[in-house]
Amino acid sequence: MNSLEQSLQHAIPLINQRLEELLSPSDEPLLTTIHEAMLYSVRAGGKRLRPLLCLLTAGALRQDESRVLDIACAIEMIHTYSLIHDDLPALDNDDLRRGKPTNHRVYGEAMAILAGDALLNRAFEVLCQLPLAPDLVIRVIAEIASSSGTAGMIGGQVVDIQSEGKSIDMPTMRYIHENKTGRIIRSCLVSSAIACQATAEQIELFDRYGYNIGLAFQIADDILDIEGDEATMGKPVGSDLQNRKSTWPALVGMNGARKAMQEMIDEANRALDPLGDSPAVTALRDLARFIIERKN
Amino acid sequence: MNSLEQSLQHAIPLINQRLEELLSPSDEPLLTTIHEAMLYSVRAGGKRLRPLLCLLTAGALRQDESRVLDIACAIEMIHTYSLIHDDLPALDNDDLRRGKPTNHRVYGEAMAILAGDALLNRAFEVLCQLPLAPDLVIRVIAEIASSSGTAGMIGGQVVDIQSEGKSIDMPTMRYIHENKTGRIIRSCLVSSAIACQATAEQIELFDRYGYNIGLAFQIADDILDIEGDEATMGKPVGSDLQNRKSTWPALVGMNGARKAMQEMIDEANRALDPLGDSPAVTALRDLARFIIERKN
Repeated sequence: MNSLEQSLQHAIPLINQRLEELLSPSDEPLLTTIHEAMLYSVRAGGKRLRPLLCLLTAGALRQDESRVLDIACAIEMIHTYSLIHDDLPALDNDDLRRGKPTNHRVYGEAMAILAGDALLNRAFEVLCQLPLAPDLVIRVIAEIASSSGTAGMIGGQVVDIQSEGKSIDMPTMRYIHENKTGRIIRSCLVSSAIACQATAEQIELFDRYGYNIGLAFQIADDILDIEGDEATMGKPVGSDLQNRKSTWPALVGMNGARKAMQEMIDEANRALDPLGDSPAVTALRDLARFIIERKN
Repeated sequence: MNSLEQSLQHAIPLINQRLEELLSPSDEPLLTTIHEAMLYSVRAGGKRLRPLLCLLTAGALRQDESRVLDIACAIEMIHTYSLIHDDLPALDNDDLRRGKPTNHRVYGEAMAILAGDALLNRAFEVLCQLPLAPDLVIRVIAEIASSSGTAGMIGGQVVDIQSEGKSIDMPTMRYIHENKTGRIIRSCLVSSAIACQATAEQIELFDRYGYNIGLAFQIADDILDIEGDEATMGKPVGSDLQNRKSTWPALVGMNGARKAMQEMIDEANRALDPLGDSPAVTALRDLARFIIERKN
């Protein structure tokens, strides 16, 4: 079992339990369904990559993970809300997500829209209660809000939608990749580093690691979308290509895509060097390798 | 010109100008449309009741309105996002809002969903930059996040949707009224009072005023929906009744509804008594009266 697997074995139950606590239903019976809808998609969650990055950042900085656990959960809520809204008929119109019916297929479109809204809102409620000094709390909230807004994730979603059915150029594709998923991945590392009172230099290292694995992750997704297998992926293969004509392999070829991905992983690993060796740093390196080797 | 009219003449341009600044488009040409979509609905905004309540709270506490101007704008963004999502085909399916085509009719459903998401997100970004001590900023964000989430506005929207086409009882209708619109109206006053370092007693007074005018506002809406005139309202009359069978007048009769509304306005005015006399307090009293006398 490598460091990443050890980290996962420890982190996943911790994250899942805290998510359940933070999303526990209210006493109001009228709200049963909306809370169920929120939890449905959070429970259907996949790799918990983002929360894991938060915990590993604290570990790499030799800080207690209790400083960042709720940051990890808040970001997972934001990630989940973005998937719920992305899957809606007006957007990607996906019936399946990770092999399960999408939120609107189970709860209806109206409830899915509101469950997404509620998860975004709940994330900010959770962040207000972080067990940190007030000035750190505000810096964390500002970082996450900025990465999930139009200058980040939503911007990436918008440009992705605008590119539907079009051939796009490399800068536009890069914009989508850097923002739709990449910006939040960076924010896991940066916001957690802020919460751990990292220096500006350390924050920059984590940001660089996050930037590179985020982009590599997207290229890997593009490659998997072409080469993957429907049963393993839990969604129809080739759907990216149906909706948007340009992917990394389409623009630079499959070999070019693989080469770019490898360079980014190398750069991510170099960023970690000044942090020295620790189980968390080793797990971050394992994770970078996992991204390009994963099969779903 | 009464105190309310004087306040409006001063406040509306101030609020509108600040909203334009806070929502000014980025330099990224790929994001032109989403920023246009966000601004479209904010500009189509109506009475600016919520931001005005924020400014008047500061005035009633003899504090500079610069303390609360961005709170006012953030809440108006949250209000606007909720209207954009409420108007979607999956929810109320409205083509018109204040006499103008709804967001999704102009920008399409996908962009409308994301414009709503982006306005909620932007509200929290703005709140992180409030010119206040960090502990006050966090209390303000927590108050607003709580009032706009499932325990507040979203909860009200959910129960409203679940009640579509059904006869509901008084507690359920009250739940919708108190939460769908009422909770955010209270939050304008409470969050602004927090920002002005009001005492717990003062915050409670503002909360009571807000609770009562918020509920009275909803009863007035129900009455206008029955008696109003399409041209003045800018939306089809009777639409509430088409979607949800129970309104305040339907449950307690038109006279009972008017009586309840008057009692709430009286209670709202009583709550203001300990604040003494000032132009802002007078404007708050005028506003309470305006709510039951308005024609749209």
